[in-house]
Amino acid sequence: MAVLTIEEARALVVRAFAVSYVSPENAVKVADALIAAQVDGQGGHGLSRVASYAAQAASGKVDGHAVPQISRPTPSLLHVDAQYGFAFPALSLLINELPEIARKDGIAAGYVYRSHHCGQLGAHVEKLATAGVVALMVANSPPAMAPWGGSTALFGTNPIAFAAPRADGPPLVIDLSLSRVARGKVMAAAKSGEKIPEGWALDADGQPTTNATDALKGTMLPMGDAKGAALALIVEILCATLTGANPSYQATSFFEAEGAPPGVGQTIIAFSPDAAAPGFSERLEGLLQTIMAQDGTRLPGVSRQQKRSAAVAHGIDLPDHLLAEINDIIESSNG
Amino acid sequence: MAVLTIEEARALVVRAFAVSYVSPENAVKVADALIAAQVDGQGGHGLSRVASYAAQAASGKVDGHAVPQISRPTPSLLHVDAQYGFAFPALSLLINELPEIARKDGIAAGYVYRSHHCGQLGAHVEKLATAGVVALMVANSPPAMAPWGGSTALFGTNPIAFAAPRADGPPLVIDLSLSRVARGKVMAAAKSGEKIPEGWALDADGQPTTNATDALKGTMLPMGDAKGAALALIVEILCATLTGANPSYQATSFFEAEGAPPGVGQTIIAFSPDAAAPGFSERLEGLLQTIMAQDGTRLPGVSRQQKRSAAVAHGIDLPDHLLAEINDIIESSNG
Repeated sequence: MAVLTIEEARALVVRAFAVSYVSPENAVKVADALIAAQVDGQGGHGLSRVASYAAQAASGKVDGHAVPQISRPTPSLLHVDAQYGFAFPALSLLINELPEIARKDGIAAGYVYRSHHCGQLGAHVEKLATAGVVALMVANSPPAMAPWGGSTALFGTNPIAFAAPRADGPPLVIDLSLSRVARGKVMAAAKSGEKIPEGWALDADGQPTTNATDALKGTMLPMGDAKGAALALIVEILCATLTGANPSYQATSFFEAEGAPPGVGQTIIAFSPDAAAPGFSERLEGLLQTIMAQDGTRLPGVSRQQKRSAAVAHGIDLPDHLLAEINDIIESSNG
Repeated sequence: MAVLTIEEARALVVRAFAVSYVSPENAVKVADALIAAQVDGQGGHGLSRVASYAAQAASGKVDGHAVPQISRPTPSLLHVDAQYGFAFPALSLLINELPEIARKDGIAAGYVYRSHHCGQLGAHVEKLATAGVVALMVANSPPAMAPWGGSTALFGTNPIAFAAPRADGPPLVIDLSLSRVARGKVMAAAKSGEKIPEGWALDADGQPTTNATDALKGTMLPMGDAKGAALALIVEILCATLTGANPSYQATSFFEAEGAPPGVGQTIIAFSPDAAAPGFSERLEGLLQTIMAQDGTRLPGVSRQQKRSAAVAHGIDLPDHLLAEINDIIESSNG
């Protein structure tokens, strides 16, 4: 296990992308997002992605030189064509422009299409909340869950995130996928050969399984059963049908370097906190304090904040194989 | 069991409200909503509510003569003060004005506060979809679910509904509460003395229970456990913290005639389907057909449509005790 400062890790990842058919601007934006996920303890959206991102840029599955295009088709709506590049530069454009429109109009939406893996959604809405607006975000992803009653993956794990600014301290951030557990947990179990608990997934025949490899060939179960599957359909319509992105069932893998671009979508809705009723901050604190006053509760996002504080203080723990993987990208480009 | 035509039932309910401290305009709007729920097979939001609504109007807990006030604080946002009256007249105002703003601005939101029980959310978003826009709605309600890890009810069952227009036929309508099962099912079991399955609810000490009466004193479990509780928090912020409505934990019962008004909130977001990417209808049909192509699946809302068709054809089946309850309201006002 290596320990890197955040700055060392960022410089390393920027360099890996810079030698991997990625423009300098995009290399910085993608590196920043992966480092932020790693710092937040979200390793599945962090530096473990560097090698597969670089391979996808090399194969042309993701266009590392893409320059996302933003338009404003109607007053309260931004539409970003990610141009089959990385999601982060496209989202960055959107996140810069959305708060001002939301403040002026009361509510504003931003749609991204022809996009790619957007990592931890919480990080995006957190930026909007830090800029002073309430934000709700949904995204689709390659097929992982069947429609309720079916047995073939059709929806992604279609995450939902939400953030709200707080008067003192960091925003409230909620970030959840609609599968009962994250698919990354099944992938990790398959890699290590461990069994998974019943209730996480079905095999390719639609039968319950505790075999992680069989589960990866089957489907993830939605949280809340039929209700969760219905929420996945809502997310699909919001971030693909409305935006012009590919539906999950047409999206290719975020991991493999071969194939067409995934072309997924992301939708963010931003709300001006005080547009209708002044006193948002006080009402939010009242609500959160009432939750915290009950024994056994904690606010969403707290564990991520603790991991972030630890990483800022002590640096990022990086498994040796991951450091080697990233160094290999840089070294092989010099060969 | 009595069978009434929809028109007979509507006339009866309008008359019951008209003699119950409810203005003629409000009597029609409230009756229409309750009849529509009954027709859709949603009896818990239907005519079973007439007596308790009338009693609340008589006690002044709901202001039957309230005239909701609509304002537009920012270009894309409508804010409706329900004036502690029934929810339906307030929502009706909002639903009339929201589509035009959504079409012009791309997205628009409407917030209702100082409101009351809004019945089946699906009916409201369905009207918006019939008017050509995609709609997402959330509402809060009297305390029913604890924050995750806690044991005291703090969130309502905080439903979410969604509707999208379809090229041919009625809109797609999704309507779900965030409790694992509707609280009405526990209330019905308590009334009939039946046990409830484990996993539906906790008792007042936060322990699992199969006793429906104990469950009503305790809390409903959220769908999807911690994730469902997090969604309930999102709903709470969207329809109370943003709107100025009471949070669920300050909302009084929708059933009992005593106490302060519940003062809850409802939030609707309307999206112009084609504002960003023309071809919404074709993409939606592609998605829905892909779902339907799998054995064992069905689209949300289909069973409700079937019940509606049956009621239109054959009338409304009304239990004798319910018909007597409504007739009593009318007769006692003549006494």
